[in-house]
Amino acid sequence: MALKYGIIGTGALGGFYGGMLAKAGQEVHFLFRSDYEYVRKNGLQVDSIKGDFHLDNVNAYQRSQQMPVCDVILVCLKTTGNHLLPELIKPLLHSKSVVILLQNGLGLEEDLSAELPNIQIAGGLAFICSNKVGPGHISHLDYGKLIIGSHNVTDPEILNQVVNDFQTAEVHTEFSVDLLLSRWQKLVWNIPFNGMTVVLNTTPDRLMANDSTRELALEMMLEVIHGANKCGVLLKESLAQQMIDMTMKMKPYAPSMKLDFDFHRPMEIEYIYYNPVQTAMEAGFVMNKVSMLEKQLRFIQTYW
Amino acid sequence: MALKYGIIGTGALGGFYGGMLAKAGQEVHFLFRSDYEYVRKNGLQVDSIKGDFHLDNVNAYQRSQQMPVCDVILVCLKTTGNHLLPELIKPLLHSKSVVILLQNGLGLEEDLSAELPNIQIAGGLAFICSNKVGPGHISHLDYGKLIIGSHNVTDPEILNQVVNDFQTAEVHTEFSVDLLLSRWQKLVWNIPFNGMTVVLNTTPDRLMANDSTRELALEMMLEVIHGANKCGVLLKESLAQQMIDMTMKMKPYAPSMKLDFDFHRPMEIEYIYYNPVQTAMEAGFVMNKVSMLEKQLRFIQTYW
Repeated sequence: MALKYGIIGTGALGGFYGGMLAKAGQEVHFLFRSDYEYVRKNGLQVDSIKGDFHLDNVNAYQRSQQMPVCDVILVCLKTTGNHLLPELIKPLLHSKSVVILLQNGLGLEEDLSAELPNIQIAGGLAFICSNKVGPGHISHLDYGKLIIGSHNVTDPEILNQVVNDFQTAEVHTEFSVDLLLSRWQKLVWNIPFNGMTVVLNTTPDRLMANDSTRELALEMMLEVIHGANKCGVLLKESLAQQMIDMTMKMKPYAPSMKLDFDFHRPMEIEYIYYNPVQTAMEAGFVMNKVSMLEKQLRFIQTYW
Repeated sequence: MALKYGIIGTGALGGFYGGMLAKAGQEVHFLFRSDYEYVRKNGLQVDSIKGDFHLDNVNAYQRSQQMPVCDVILVCLKTTGNHLLPELIKPLLHSKSVVILLQNGLGLEEDLSAELPNIQIAGGLAFICSNKVGPGHISHLDYGKLIIGSHNVTDPEILNQVVNDFQTAEVHTEFSVDLLLSRWQKLVWNIPFNGMTVVLNTTPDRLMANDSTRELALEMMLEVIHGANKCGVLLKESLAQQMIDMTMKMKPYAPSMKLDFDFHRPMEIEYIYYNPVQTAMEAGFVMNKVSMLEKQLRFIQTYW
């Protein structure tokens, strides 16, 4: 039986992943904010390295109360709005719905579960370079892999089906048997590069081209790995150098927090920095450099 | 017998302290660079909170080879030019000259001593808010205390006389019995505030007004204190909070490294960051946050 999808937040991520599902024939319902009127009239345009496409008839909504209940609810908002999440998703829930938090950071599923204890929650990690470039207009520049893992999903079959649906829609998707490990692993890259590109107002390739900041990025990655290990999440130290090598080969690219900073949007400090620092500290490990970066970001956030 | 003074570098510091000595009647010889012609014609103007004054007849020189030998040589250059120091001061030396390095950081006296093993060296620390605002024109805005201590001075009487000469010239001056302790103590303030005002492009009062950066400054101060302690330099932990309290009361003010950054001059990273980090590391203590700040500064220095 086909799954019914709800997309909460149709921006760079929701527009691309939801758009790919809809293009592949899935029933997808999209929540918009400011772009609602535009998309009702003009549809959704996705410019992608995998091929541009346009969706003429989009199931577009301006308020989640107007949306139907869905089997899978993909949350594609920035975590800075997560306090609104319970109210936003409640109208879409039926007794077996699965909410997938396609967001960065640590502690997201736990927070939502505390607010809505009876729902099934999963997490998703998007490895993608994608931007919203205009109303109802997404530009997918590079990558695109999706990793999905369960937080407390009691029906494993539904996540398998989600993975299959994405694969059918030509989105390379993997199932993670350890969501917490996947989240920490992504933080190993996100923590140095999101914050450092903001604090030093630069790009990852420039950080890599400089001996001091390349070394600092490696040190911060190792700090995150040691923090994860102390929390019982076993990441290898060699992952740090692998990620440095990978970053050396990346095209010039602005991490999401740098884009938030450049466009004067709030930065995702709580879930990407505060929670990992606190979690590691409670496990007995002080992430000195990560904590310093967090404090520098908080200063910058205040003085915009 | 009166001492003959030579000032190497007549900028914000050399112009003020040398000017105060000359005003008090001491024989002072000043080395200038670009301001030489101007000062020969127009003299030296010092605007000071202690009272403005003008020196009409200045013993001004354009090259140290033209200067007479002096009893006391006050080095008032930025440490970024210290590789030139041996050649600059050689012409002023007699067998009993004392060179006082009025500069910030760690390892200055050791480096000069390695180049010129047979000379007497002392260190000086200036607690002053002073700027060069035009050719031959110094503006002294606040504070002014001088601390002087011996590195390898065999004739203690001469440093006493220097202290007395400054006191007579109405410069509050103290003799330090432990130069290394005085240097580390000044670093406790300089390390967080010089670097952080550059990296976050701000001022100490703004860093103090923000909870995150006030906490970070305190943590970095404690790191420097622990580093010093590990090197056998006994600073109390309570010094950190004292310095925070003092900084809270300071008028808005740009530390010297921030001014260097703003005016696109090289920053004193080697003596203020690299040497303390290395010295502490060799003694078995890793200054994580200070080292991170050093690397951020090196990145900024490269990408100006």
